[in-house]
Amino acid sequence: MIIITRQGVTDSELDHIRERVEILGMRTHISRGEHQTVIGCIGDDTLIQEVSLLSLPGVQQVVPVMKPYKLAAREFVAEPTVVRVGDVHGASIGGRELAVIAGPCSVEGREMLLASAEAVRSAGASLLRGGAYKPRSSPYAFQGLGVTALKLLAEVRAETGLPVVTEVMDTRQVEVVAEHADVLQIGARNMQNFSLLSEVGRIQRPVLLKRGLSATIKELLMAAEYIMAQGNRDVILCERGIRTYETATRNTFDVAAIPVLKQETHLPVIVDPSHAGGRADLVAPLSYAAIAAGADGLIIEVHPAPETALSDGDQSLAPAAFAALMKSLPPFAAAVGRTLDPQTLEVEVAA
Amino acid sequence: MIIITRQGVTDSELDHIRERVEILGMRTHISRGEHQTVIGCIGDDTLIQEVSLLSLPGVQQVVPVMKPYKLAAREFVAEPTVVRVGDVHGASIGGRELAVIAGPCSVEGREMLLASAEAVRSAGASLLRGGAYKPRSSPYAFQGLGVTALKLLAEVRAETGLPVVTEVMDTRQVEVVAEHADVLQIGARNMQNFSLLSEVGRIQRPVLLKRGLSATIKELLMAAEYIMAQGNRDVILCERGIRTYETATRNTFDVAAIPVLKQETHLPVIVDPSHAGGRADLVAPLSYAAIAAGADGLIIEVHPAPETALSDGDQSLAPAAFAALMKSLPPFAAAVGRTLDPQTLEVEVAA
Amino acid sequence: MIIITRQGVTDSELDHIRERVEILGMRTHISRGEHQTVIGCIGDDTLIQEVSLLSLPGVQQVVPVMKPYKLAAREFVAEPTVVRVGDVHGASIGGRELAVIAGPCSVEGREMLLASAEAVRSAGASLLRGGAYKPRSSPYAFQGLGVTALKLLAEVRAETGLPVVTEVMDTRQVEVVAEHADVLQIGARNMQNFSLLSEVGRIQRPVLLKRGLSATIKELLMAAEYIMAQGNRDVILCERGIRTYETATRNTFDVAAIPVLKQETHLPVIVDPSHAGGRADLVAPLSYAAIAAGADGLIIEVHPAPETALSDGDQSLAPAAFAALMKSLPPFAAAVGRTLDPQTLEVEVAA
Amino acid sequence: MIIITRQGVTDSELDHIRERVEILGMRTHISRGEHQTVIGCIGDDTLIQEVSLLSLPGVQQVVPVMKPYKLAAREFVAEPTVVRVGDVHGASIGGRELAVIAGPCSVEGREMLLASAEAVRSAGASLLRGGAYKPRSSPYAFQGLGVTALKLLAEVRAETGLPVVTEVMDTRQVEVVAEHADVLQIGARNMQNFSLLSEVGRIQRPVLLKRGLSATIKELLMAAEYIMAQGNRDVILCERGIRTYETATRNTFDVAAIPVLKQETHLPVIVDPSHAGGRADLVAPLSYAAIAAGADGLIIEVHPAPETALSDGDQSLAPAAFAALMKSLPPFAAAVGRTLDPQTLEVEVAA
Repeated sequence: MIIITRQGVTDSELDHIRERVEILGMRTHISRGEHQTVIGCIGDDTLIQEVSLLSLPGVQQVVPVMKPYKLAAREFVAEPTVVRVGDVHGASIGGRELAVIAGPCSVEGREMLLASAEAVRSAGASLLRGGAYKPRSSPYAFQGLGVTALKLLAEVRAETGLPVVTEVMDTRQVEVVAEHADVLQIGARNMQNFSLLSEVGRIQRPVLLKRGLSATIKELLMAAEYIMAQGNRDVILCERGIRTYETATRNTFDVAAIPVLKQETHLPVIVDPSHAGGRADLVAPLSYAAIAAGADGLIIEVHPAPETALSDGDQSLAPAAFAALMKSLPPFAAAVGRTLDPQTLEVEVAA
Repeated sequence: MIIITRQGVTDSELDHIRERVEILGMRTHISRGEHQTVIGCIGDDTLIQEVSLLSLPGVQQVVPVMKPYKLAAREFVAEPTVVRVGDVHGASIGGRELAVIAGPCSVEGREMLLASAEAVRSAGASLLRGGAYKPRSSPYAFQGLGVTALKLLAEVRAETGLPVVTEVMDTRQVEVVAEHADVLQIGARNMQNFSLLSEVGRIQRPVLLKRGLSATIKELLMAAEYIMAQGNRDVILCERGIRTYETATRNTFDVAAIPVLKQETHLPVIVDPSHAGGRADLVAPLSYAAIAAGADGLIIEVHPAPETALSDGDQSLAPAAFAALMKSLPPFAAAVGRTLDPQTLEVEVAA
Repeated sequence: MIIITRQGVTDSELDHIRERVEILGMRTHISRGEHQTVIGCIGDDTLIQEVSLLSLPGVQQVVPVMKPYKLAAREFVAEPTVVRVGDVHGASIGGRELAVIAGPCSVEGREMLLASAEAVRSAGASLLRGGAYKPRSSPYAFQGLGVTALKLLAEVRAETGLPVVTEVMDTRQVEVVAEHADVLQIGARNMQNFSLLSEVGRIQRPVLLKRGLSATIKELLMAAEYIMAQGNRDVILCERGIRTYETATRNTFDVAAIPVLKQETHLPVIVDPSHAGGRADLVAPLSYAAIAAGADGLIIEVHPAPETALSDGDQSLAPAAFAALMKSLPPFAAAVGRTLDPQTLEVEVAA
Repeated sequence: MIIITRQGVTDSELDHIRERVEILGMRTHISRGEHQTVIGCIGDDTLIQEVSLLSLPGVQQVVPVMKPYKLAAREFVAEPTVVRVGDVHGASIGGRELAVIAGPCSVEGREMLLASAEAVRSAGASLLRGGAYKPRSSPYAFQGLGVTALKLLAEVRAETGLPVVTEVMDTRQVEVVAEHADVLQIGARNMQNFSLLSEVGRIQRPVLLKRGLSATIKELLMAAEYIMAQGNRDVILCERGIRTYETATRNTFDVAAIPVLKQETHLPVIVDPSHAGGRADLVAPLSYAAIAAGADGLIIEVHPAPETALSDGDQSLAPAAFAALMKSLPPFAAAVGRTLDPQTLEVEVAA
């Protein structure tokens, strides 16, 4: 941390600043210039981040030098993290093979869930998504089937072999969701629900953490740090578009977040093109862009009959459109040295 | 709800659209024009908001006509809601008298809390704020004293007579917070934590609902609707700045939200100038602007020694600065026909 | 300027960085720490701002210390600048008296302009606004009457005594506009039209510089600096709302920009509540907030018959509404120690 | 255009609204519902867009149905526009072959320009970029070499055969720039400089129109419409990132704008990954994403020695990095059915 002082800072002000920094366990190094004097602060700045240095007389600017996240930082883990999902029927996210998670926004019933799962599996998806608890902006909208949906997801996993990803919205749901699902999703609106982050940090299930509606990349990494600080290191980050002034799309897909995150962290990064664009016709081009920019996977909304969906129908793909999309992905994966086919991968690894 | 169809929509497409709308319980009225055909949909559109009409062939645009919030809407309650707070020592928010809530960001201990409470009371504040559970973006930062802080708040209320406002972050904390505090605050990061909104909707304590970091005014009202839909009608809205590209201030104080909210809802609207600007030197001008624009009150961070504060020191006022601010407010209140002095008000009411 | 180096920077990298800084005319001071080494750069950093230090091996972060604007900076001129407008019938902006500029968005004809001018003068406005050249987002929309409108403005000034403010959009128009108008306005969309800024910097007429649609406060000050660097020191800044995700208002009125600008610059700051909110019903509350936050004046759209206006009718006030607004302003002005009445002021000054 | 009236609109209000619409040359069709009455307006709505219908008593909402741009609209020209550039040594933008424009931010001298041109040509670029007039946010920064630079660009074109793209900032520069350059660039800060748009609309040179810092997709298309309305149909659109709250990148690259623009317009769309990310290390991943999402080309900053560049050094590629980038693009182009090599294309066309 570096403290830049105001022009004309007095010696007693400097002493006072230095004293406060040193009380908090850091050493200081003062560098006097003609126009400004700078105080370098050396040591663990965890404590000092919590006090207000800006309000000290003589301080003009405080420049943090260290990153505020540690466990999530690239520097902490040299190799990219590969998150293993599921037990019998496994999948992994973050390796050379791209992971595609697909399924309906909400679990509306057994039949539609099974139809969705079979459709996405046969098209090549490796995980099933489906909402049991739905964060809806209106209290009068469909809120999800809850535990009933969790049971259906577990049943359909048994039938199709697809590991299951589903959202958890409340600290009180963590246990029951972890019992039924393979990956717990934290939705965009809960990215800074710190109680929930800590709670999913205490279990041993991978967590899919979506970027908040207007979260910075740094805040997303800090949210991952919350989970990891409790012991759970299996965090998958998800870019799903951010809120901007542009209204042509539901959100603005921040494709540059992918390479930036890849530099900053060892955690896998996937993309949700359904929410990023909010329009079924944009899912394909945004998926291509995501893979081209280095994403480790995609999470896509697929519904057997989008026009009857109880939520997010405008952005859901019908099974045929999803199958066509999956067929079009391999050249993009190949262009970045990745693959979509587990079989291909295994053969290569064996060779 | 009005459905605008694409140019060249066919009769069978029109029939299909009409059929789906009528299945959902609404009546339709088709108006054919030279270039476009419009379908008016009459009836309760609650259900229809959940399905995807845009994905139906022939549909170009769907225009909602009704507001999605009902209990929070101006049309629902003609008179402005005045929220009564506390039992013995009461305060009220939303009436002619402006309410000032003040106190430290976090409860750091008994001594500092009592000092803060006495300072803000003697300066004229009518409620005490103080954080027991703190939403911090870093898991390594001070997270609040929890139940210990709640007990201190209750003690200090007993000593000073100031009703207490404190934040609740987790559904599991609602009961214990409601036991100790007079007003439960929902922080900006939890504005769309729908589980928490529903939970505080089931208790009988006023709720102070802060606008989310990038929430629209409509989303803020929908969040209030969540609480009200569970039975709790005592919701106080709080504008605290929104996230924009501007970095000169911590957030961008959306002062126009005050008159817009006053038109849309009967609920009281207060302003948090400490978070809106993020700088102690901006608290006074933003407070003046808030009152001038029609706010029903202010919530201000005051700390006995801002430079030692464990959180938000940069934006906290010292007791002397807060007292000076309080002295400067009456002319602004008078300019909008409001008052700050309960005594004055009582005399007037009696007269 | 301070250069923070990467962990593990080598001596030869340090030498290379130091050499480049010194070639550009600055002196350096290296401060080595355990984890980081910092290079303080002393001297005129104008040149160095133009090269890329970040691309030098070993550089992690570059922290500018000096402000990039000089002539506009508070430090450069201790006293607030008061801009004198007009010759015979003068007005001034930036003094204790608040200035109100009012009139139609566009000059649509002689009759409506005269009616507008008389209405705003009798209500107490001290300057007349009226567009001759209109920046319209559609090439098919009314573009203004051009030179005809300029002549009408000059005529109406002669009749009413109100100095005239009008927009200039093109470097080729500067001369003719300066010939007819008292204040040249630079619109939001041209705030970074640097050719135009330089051109109006070369004349001797006050310039009303509107903040760009998504300009930062710093960029607004840099735009003022462009004008001032050419010799014209009479710049009036205007906050008119910024672009955000919120759609309830046309723009988001950044009321905090007023006190921030007042700290950063000696130039006067006025507010355009008509564009900031984009709704006639918000003009009054936003005007109150602007004055309360310390604005030096207002610029308000007034049209004799808003529903027939050729531009911006939704946000224009009818004469009666404007007169009512003017009557309601004095208590807000008084609350900040300002006044609206030139007569009052003169008497006080004389006393 | 559809007008939605308020609940309880009176017959005389309806008559008044209808009358005003019909005076402006449109026919009306009233559809009365239980809760709302809707007025469909049929005919040319160009005129009506200029008046304020919202300020009429009884009007609640006005819903435009037609798009405000015509010449730029997909509906107007069925086939994608291919813009031909240059005379002897031609290039084209918008066809199956992707166009890569590359070169330095600013023309700093003959030697560096020639070195840049030769480097980008040998790496496979088909056009040369280079700034003669530079829009700089500081008046004290390097402003470009002006006419000297234009002459150098023309000389280097003669030597290398690369058509030249350069920015025009002032209506008075249009003639001289058109004399020396093959494509006139309108920079982001001038996207709504309507005088400049009209002026470049009157010449017969292709125009490269960059999206404004916070322009919507619709505003970008309206800016193109300005140029086209004057007769010049050769407009190339350029996405270069938008301004958001995120600070990890210089701008937020709105990759979804590419497929959205491709749906809305027949004009070619290219991407500037240098400005979108603002960091040299992001140029490659953003270029891949752009091509994957359907862009027709790229414009990339290349400087012989980025660390000495007089502008934008942080985001410029050195020649070797640019050559490596060019080598990595073909698989992405192939994945979307495009190519980068004119020779390949000609062979295919001949076959």
